[in-house]
Amino acid sequence: MLKTDQQPRIHTMKAVRLHQFDKDLKRSNLVEIDDVPEPTVRKQDDVIVRIGGAGLCRTDLHIIKGNWNSKVGRPLPYILGHENAGWVHDVGDGVKHVKPGDPVIVHPLITDGTCPECRRGEDMYCPNGRFPGITHDGGFAEFFPTKQRAVIKLPPELEPKDVAPYADGGLTAYRAARKAAETMKPGMSVVILGFGGLGHIAAQVLRNLCAAQIIIVDTSEQALDLARECGFTNCLPGGNAAAETVRQLCTSGVDAVMDFAGEKETPEQCMSMLRKGGTYYVVGYGGIVSVPSIDLIFDELNVVGTLVGNYTELCELMILAAREEVKLTTTTYRLDQVNEAIHDLIAGQLTGRAVLVP
Amino acid sequence: MLKTDQQPRIHTMKAVRLHQFDKDLKRSNLVEIDDVPEPTVRKQDDVIVRIGGAGLCRTDLHIIKGNWNSKVGRPLPYILGHENAGWVHDVGDGVKHVKPGDPVIVHPLITDGTCPECRRGEDMYCPNGRFPGITHDGGFAEFFPTKQRAVIKLPPELEPKDVAPYADGGLTAYRAARKAAETMKPGMSVVILGFGGLGHIAAQVLRNLCAAQIIIVDTSEQALDLARECGFTNCLPGGNAAAETVRQLCTSGVDAVMDFAGEKETPEQCMSMLRKGGTYYVVGYGGIVSVPSIDLIFDELNVVGTLVGNYTELCELMILAAREEVKLTTTTYRLDQVNEAIHDLIAGQLTGRAVLVP
Amino acid sequence: MLKTDQQPRIHTMKAVRLHQFDKDLKRSNLVEIDDVPEPTVRKQDDVIVRIGGAGLCRTDLHIIKGNWNSKVGRPLPYILGHENAGWVHDVGDGVKHVKPGDPVIVHPLITDGTCPECRRGEDMYCPNGRFPGITHDGGFAEFFPTKQRAVIKLPPELEPKDVAPYADGGLTAYRAARKAAETMKPGMSVVILGFGGLGHIAAQVLRNLCAAQIIIVDTSEQALDLARECGFTNCLPGGNAAAETVRQLCTSGVDAVMDFAGEKETPEQCMSMLRKGGTYYVVGYGGIVSVPSIDLIFDELNVVGTLVGNYTELCELMILAAREEVKLTTTTYRLDQVNEAIHDLIAGQLTGRAVLVP
Amino acid sequence: MLKTDQQPRIHTMKAVRLHQFDKDLKRSNLVEIDDVPEPTVRKQDDVIVRIGGAGLCRTDLHIIKGNWNSKVGRPLPYILGHENAGWVHDVGDGVKHVKPGDPVIVHPLITDGTCPECRRGEDMYCPNGRFPGITHDGGFAEFFPTKQRAVIKLPPELEPKDVAPYADGGLTAYRAARKAAETMKPGMSVVILGFGGLGHIAAQVLRNLCAAQIIIVDTSEQALDLARECGFTNCLPGGNAAAETVRQLCTSGVDAVMDFAGEKETPEQCMSMLRKGGTYYVVGYGGIVSVPSIDLIFDELNVVGTLVGNYTELCELMILAAREEVKLTTTTYRLDQVNEAIHDLIAGQLTGRAVLVP
Repeated sequence: MLKTDQQPRIHTMKAVRLHQFDKDLKRSNLVEIDDVPEPTVRKQDDVIVRIGGAGLCRTDLHIIKGNWNSKVGRPLPYILGHENAGWVHDVGDGVKHVKPGDPVIVHPLITDGTCPECRRGEDMYCPNGRFPGITHDGGFAEFFPTKQRAVIKLPPELEPKDVAPYADGGLTAYRAARKAAETMKPGMSVVILGFGGLGHIAAQVLRNLCAAQIIIVDTSEQALDLARECGFTNCLPGGNAAAETVRQLCTSGVDAVMDFAGEKETPEQCMSMLRKGGTYYVVGYGGIVSVPSIDLIFDELNVVGTLVGNYTELCELMILAAREEVKLTTTTYRLDQVNEAIHDLIAGQLTGRAVLVP
Repeated sequence: MLKTDQQPRIHTMKAVRLHQFDKDLKRSNLVEIDDVPEPTVRKQDDVIVRIGGAGLCRTDLHIIKGNWNSKVGRPLPYILGHENAGWVHDVGDGVKHVKPGDPVIVHPLITDGTCPECRRGEDMYCPNGRFPGITHDGGFAEFFPTKQRAVIKLPPELEPKDVAPYADGGLTAYRAARKAAETMKPGMSVVILGFGGLGHIAAQVLRNLCAAQIIIVDTSEQALDLARECGFTNCLPGGNAAAETVRQLCTSGVDAVMDFAGEKETPEQCMSMLRKGGTYYVVGYGGIVSVPSIDLIFDELNVVGTLVGNYTELCELMILAAREEVKLTTTTYRLDQVNEAIHDLIAGQLTGRAVLVP
Repeated sequence: MLKTDQQPRIHTMKAVRLHQFDKDLKRSNLVEIDDVPEPTVRKQDDVIVRIGGAGLCRTDLHIIKGNWNSKVGRPLPYILGHENAGWVHDVGDGVKHVKPGDPVIVHPLITDGTCPECRRGEDMYCPNGRFPGITHDGGFAEFFPTKQRAVIKLPPELEPKDVAPYADGGLTAYRAARKAAETMKPGMSVVILGFGGLGHIAAQVLRNLCAAQIIIVDTSEQALDLARECGFTNCLPGGNAAAETVRQLCTSGVDAVMDFAGEKETPEQCMSMLRKGGTYYVVGYGGIVSVPSIDLIFDELNVVGTLVGNYTELCELMILAAREEVKLTTTTYRLDQVNEAIHDLIAGQLTGRAVLVP
Repeated sequence: MLKTDQQPRIHTMKAVRLHQFDKDLKRSNLVEIDDVPEPTVRKQDDVIVRIGGAGLCRTDLHIIKGNWNSKVGRPLPYILGHENAGWVHDVGDGVKHVKPGDPVIVHPLITDGTCPECRRGEDMYCPNGRFPGITHDGGFAEFFPTKQRAVIKLPPELEPKDVAPYADGGLTAYRAARKAAETMKPGMSVVILGFGGLGHIAAQVLRNLCAAQIIIVDTSEQALDLARECGFTNCLPGGNAAAETVRQLCTSGVDAVMDFAGEKETPEQCMSMLRKGGTYYVVGYGGIVSVPSIDLIFDELNVVGTLVGNYTELCELMILAAREEVKLTTTTYRLDQVNEAIHDLIAGQLTGRAVLVP
């Protein structure tokens, strides 16, 4: 909290800002490194985080292309970065559960804490939520302003730069897998379709939260190799034949399919893998789920959407990460290498998730 | 159970049989009254029911038109009738929980009782289930052969002919409403779209099982009048404007929509009534549920199919019926008036559900 | 929020304070009416409530007798009153969901909002909770200082003075009944033992949240008459014969017993009413629950304690109250009649719950 | 099923029968090996099992001592053995899901399959249940008569003699652990008090079904060594200090304690380990659970009894066993070594569970 300075000097910091959209992602400098004013504490519940790592992901590409502009209407330029972790730098005098120096991960949504949804723990439904890096300045910077309700103190085993991508992508995978796990009894089975960034985390979460048989389906042989390395023994090539193989393997189909691809044909493939009473979890998006109502009824199927995750769920994920029960592979870049990182992401030349370190 | 008769005489009974399909439902005698052998006890778990009433419903029209033929492949002629109630007439010597003379309602599926699904109470998922009136001889007759696992002894307050339509249609409405009720907390709201035979029961069930605000939507002003008579005060005309009205009434939409129409445009209307985390229950069918996956995710929506109901649920429904907490309007016909009843159903000239009484 | 006053004048108000304990509740003036400084907004999340009504209950008698002193160690004098409702008088500038003039009911615990328990909605488990009227100054006064997290805006149908006793006693009954209702299916049955202030609310809540058969047991014929007036038809005299009667009425016992008496012999009576898998809900206290472990196992019984209720549950209860699905009888007293009210309570001469109105 | 034999010859078999009680378990031959008639198929749902292994456990000692006599009143002599596995030898003609030669484990209760409890899957609540080895002839014999509802076909990975003790003791541990697991979220913690036959299985089950932190407490250093070998890293010596240690380790206590000892002082120790909202699972018995109701309320605690387990749960346990996710140590004895086995059990000289192999 700003204390006794009579004439507060304005400090500046480095930040990655988007100045113009580029539909084709062709320019070499898609974003710029700017000097901007350092954020300061203004309200009792403010928290300023010194960034230790900020995850870069496909959502950032969508933003740069302008795909979110019509929905969000955020004026340019602004600071990107919605997967943030670091150390508490300064706090308002109402902040009690963290103090300067504490390592933290930042929940992606800033919520009001007083709406009925927040009060029952479903932060993501907060009608007054703000999403830094999308609707407000984000964390591709040296410092990042957030609120006490968004920060989670990290266990001592975890480094901010190693966990930043859990803040949004990892949390999304966690919530989806946790929902599925709650319905799984021993003897039930679940397909993870797409063993990429999110599917990879969901599979590890499921393995820890329940005793279901886990089947990995991916069109990439490389992804399946990675799955086997992670200890998943049921790994099947994706494509049109996958549903048939799954149904043979599990006699009458599986109890759940988690779709991390969400492309054109995957919804139909996924639905056809389900046994009676089964559930299709939609995580990846882009396609259309289209199913005759008679089919939903005849096999009593469910379709379940899933939206990031709440604060409690991010706390739980950090506990699993601290125990190394869920692991994440990252590649780090300096903040000034951001355009290089973006182009590596575009080119598919990244191992794991990219993390910017100021 | 066949006892000491050395030469059992074959008794005959009257039964309504389908001899040929009629795609246009034009013939006056769509089904015929035949003399057929009376069913007898052959196995330890057999139960012969003297029919007190058998419900006639739209599924019977579909069968007569031949719509189910490709799925079921049942050779003609056979006895229709899948909503059956009556009195126990004879039992095999392994039957313990009912005895001759007991009034019973008959669960629509004959199940094996030994598969994992039956063992956890989900009879409808039994892979060896038989569906009398669809895949085997049904209950439009004086006597009806079933199994001990399918019969439920009626409480003394209930007459077989008054409850027969609960056996399938009523049970379907009950299971769907019970699923929805389990998620409802005070302050939540649910739309019943279609206040016909099933919607009418579901609304009463919901009112008894939870404290949600119930909103009735129907395109028929007559149906809405009936809803008001039943004590439902939030009644809205259906159509394209309904979703907008519902969203205004409940600020950000409702927590659940139960679709008993299931026609072309209703899935989209229903989905657009939901608030974040809401669920669309599909009961009526015919249309296609088609939704961009981004929408499922953005509002974290669920789509839930529902399939008849299990034995325990039919027992529960009978308890509510005995207490008059759920009521059903029926019109009775003699068995030999069956063609008249069918044509009344086709013409929409029926009050409530038709029940054939031998 | 204190705004531009250069020299804020200190206002005073009337408040009911406890100056000394009285083990025997003999003195005529057990508490005193004092002039004390009016509370003012100091923090961003402060809310000052102008009291419309404050419930008086047996807990206040325990406090006056000094029974809580060893646990709480609160120095005297201080203001009593833990069931508070009124109108928002002033707010800190961080308060968003209520504004001056709004009618509100006040959740009895002031919680931090940042602990894991608060974040998943279980406010009562907050390790930093404060309990005004017990551990801090309460609401037997003209104004009452609380926090934004504790206030719930009332629906327009509800008057503060009519709902104040819901804030603690009513909420306790609600949470217990809601827990029980979640396990009740049609055909199940529940005993309410003790149809007094809390039992009376629990019974109404159960009737609204589920379709269980409700059986009222009370040793007072007057209480049973009241139960019958409220529409409960299964009403049995309490005492040692009650368990036997209940077991006959429900064949093999009931699925749940809610104990609002909690005296010496009631735990054993309650446990003996349960069927296999049944649950004993402990709400009233004072006695000891003592049961051989073999009995818990042989019938697979559960014992469930219940502790006031969370913010969301109080919101839900207000919704039921606004719809008149739960009703409460109160007797109002002026603030300066507090000693009269206390002695009426001691003498058992109160109809319903006592509410002090400044 | 007895088929064409005109004059069925009566076969005899070896069986272990109890002829007289021995309160002090002093006689060397506590039970005798008799020649008795071999059981045969008489009803459509009969199944005769050729015993591959039958578990011996402390319940058998209680029976021999006569402790169960007053409850059960079973006339002597009769065949002991309530944990049975083997191969199907013969079946009635109504038996569909197993055939002669199939390896099976036998659920300990023979149930009617038609009562409401059986129909919703809670076999243990069946009012007509029979318990072979306790109320009827059991499985310490070459052949054992049971019913189709009691037999579960084993996966090919499992040998009858290796799994027999799962039939009752293992199943009890499984159900209790499964109940607890359903309430566990990452970050929660559970104490297993008593790492003996049942506690050992429960700990493995919990590890597979949830991500809770598992803490083993036992008074025997040998048991704690075994726990460490099984991969459990939080192992604490039992006794009066255990509760304090647990509370320090988990700050404010654990979310669940599973008591497999159930002796005099363990209920109180267990209750004192719990944090707010925590649950005490009673599995071991003998002691008395005695707790002031104020304590149950103040920390909102639960006490949960647990009773063997249902058919579905035994199926699930077999799946975990087949995957070697739950392992069991056994010592086998020939049927004619039964008195030696019993005395080894009395003397505490058994490694793991004793299994009799005909």
